[in-house]
Amino acid sequence: MARGGEDEFVVEWLRALPKNAPRAGVVAGAAAGDDCAILRVPGDRAHWRLLKTDGVIEGVHFRAGTAPERVGWKALCRPLSDFAAMGGGRPEHALISLAWNPRAAGADYVRGIYAGLGKAARAFRVAIVGGETAATPGPLSMSVFLSGTILRKHCVRRGGGRAGDLLYVTGRLGGSFASERHLDFRPRLAEARWLTAHFPLHALMDLSDGLGADLPRLARRSGGGLGWRLDRAALPCAPGCDATAALNDGEDYELLFALAPRHAQTLERSWRRRFPKIPLTRIGELTAPGEGDDLDARGFDHFCARKA
Amino acid sequence: MARGGEDEFVVEWLRALPKNAPRAGVVAGAAAGDDCAILRVPGDRAHWRLLKTDGVIEGVHFRAGTAPERVGWKALCRPLSDFAAMGGGRPEHALISLAWNPRAAGADYVRGIYAGLGKAARAFRVAIVGGETAATPGPLSMSVFLSGTILRKHCVRRGGGRAGDLLYVTGRLGGSFASERHLDFRPRLAEARWLTAHFPLHALMDLSDGLGADLPRLARRSGGGLGWRLDRAALPCAPGCDATAALNDGEDYELLFALAPRHAQTLERSWRRRFPKIPLTRIGELTAPGEGDDLDARGFDHFCARKA
Repeated sequence: MARGGEDEFVVEWLRALPKNAPRAGVVAGAAAGDDCAILRVPGDRAHWRLLKTDGVIEGVHFRAGTAPERVGWKALCRPLSDFAAMGGGRPEHALISLAWNPRAAGADYVRGIYAGLGKAARAFRVAIVGGETAATPGPLSMSVFLSGTILRKHCVRRGGGRAGDLLYVTGRLGGSFASERHLDFRPRLAEARWLTAHFPLHALMDLSDGLGADLPRLARRSGGGLGWRLDRAALPCAPGCDATAALNDGEDYELLFALAPRHAQTLERSWRRRFPKIPLTRIGELTAPGEGDDLDARGFDHFCARKA
Repeated sequence: MARGGEDEFVVEWLRALPKNAPRAGVVAGAAAGDDCAILRVPGDRAHWRLLKTDGVIEGVHFRAGTAPERVGWKALCRPLSDFAAMGGGRPEHALISLAWNPRAAGADYVRGIYAGLGKAARAFRVAIVGGETAATPGPLSMSVFLSGTILRKHCVRRGGGRAGDLLYVTGRLGGSFASERHLDFRPRLAEARWLTAHFPLHALMDLSDGLGADLPRLARRSGGGLGWRLDRAALPCAPGCDATAALNDGEDYELLFALAPRHAQTLERSWRRRFPKIPLTRIGELTAPGEGDDLDARGFDHFCARKA
């Protein structure tokens, strides 16, 4: 699955950067392919620190004219979803970097973005401790930086999947842009915390680019490059979507994880009790390298031309 | 000095955001006006954690066509200068958020930016542990997030100045854009560390928007709003610059600090021994509220229209 996408660029360039500064305590930089950078916490063996930056750009991640509160909500919820993807990390502090064109958007619009950020910060108990604004002649863009912690024993990375593991996804997939779900989604922090507290997940990530792009990433990182088998008929499609949309639309912000089959029954039963309104769907399995399906569909990639 | 600039917008909007999440341990958010957010470190009373985000945008902070290594260097050195401005904080981890238009700049240009980031990271011992790239139809922009620590006893904020304190600046001011010094400057981390280890500075900041804008900020935060007296003839002007340029050009990334007069002689003598190549200049003093000069010149402000 050689894809000339965002992933590969970032990984290549980040690999060349120094990660071994004194006291850096890096367990895994982002070039390792996880959703967050993982750092040791001096004097605290029970926790790791997670760091993440993620952004939204007008015309790419939201349409010009989108209600500003929803833009702010989405901007903070994207890195929160990455914290969920590590196993339910606990976000603590956020910083906001915002660039806007005062000739294109009034101060009220930007104030609305901050209101949306505040709403998400209260919902997920994040302290927004800093920020920076700058004028730009270009489209409005924001970067959100998130710092927090996770219990080491609950931290699950992308690359731990094993051949024979069952693959699960939360929620429903597809149509996130058309339905505007991508503006209002709730990151699966509580769900990820519950999962990692009760089940020994082997691999975990969030679905931001579409299952069709993200599942190969998880498999590729696992066990030296595993294969997978996907039950397309089982895919939990959002209303009005077919399997192709569920694979390709992207921005689902649901969880994808791999688990040994012996836990399947307990997992499915306890999930239904704990989260009765959120589907949990077994969509396939990881296979030995070279076996399994190939995905003909390409997932969402920010480097592909597409209209937001 | 009511200025409708970047400062006031950010402060107003950030004030409305939640800062009291559980375990947030916020000593000061950025809305307090300091160069970095200050956080308590659980289980470590000797240190505080510093967080900062800062960015560069093509056409605002650098010209299109600038050598990419210099863009990367500047992008990391800007928040490093904010760490210096807190008293010489120790940077540990950085994350890079980069948005670029693949149709306008080739991959080699972006790779060059990462090379410049790497050079600055090695020079100042920062571990770059993560990043994100996105395509944008707009100008190239980057945000750099920096996390690190500082000895509490060495942390100096903007607002501690007292009437009668002497004001000092490091280096030479003015002409940073014309001379392209803004692309190659070295953040004053070592100098700030030495200063705070040896002298009880009352207030400290870095000069990013020009002394004409930054000095009023320091005075306004200090002692409920102090005045100042400025010795324009004493200003350490960069080659080819007059006092007006030194006040207004901005992007000097030098240190401005306030110190009780009784330390002046020792400071000036020891500084010359320790940093013989870097000027340290007494430029005036803080006065009681309502006394002193008024600056007729406006410093650099990113919300003012100007050509980079």
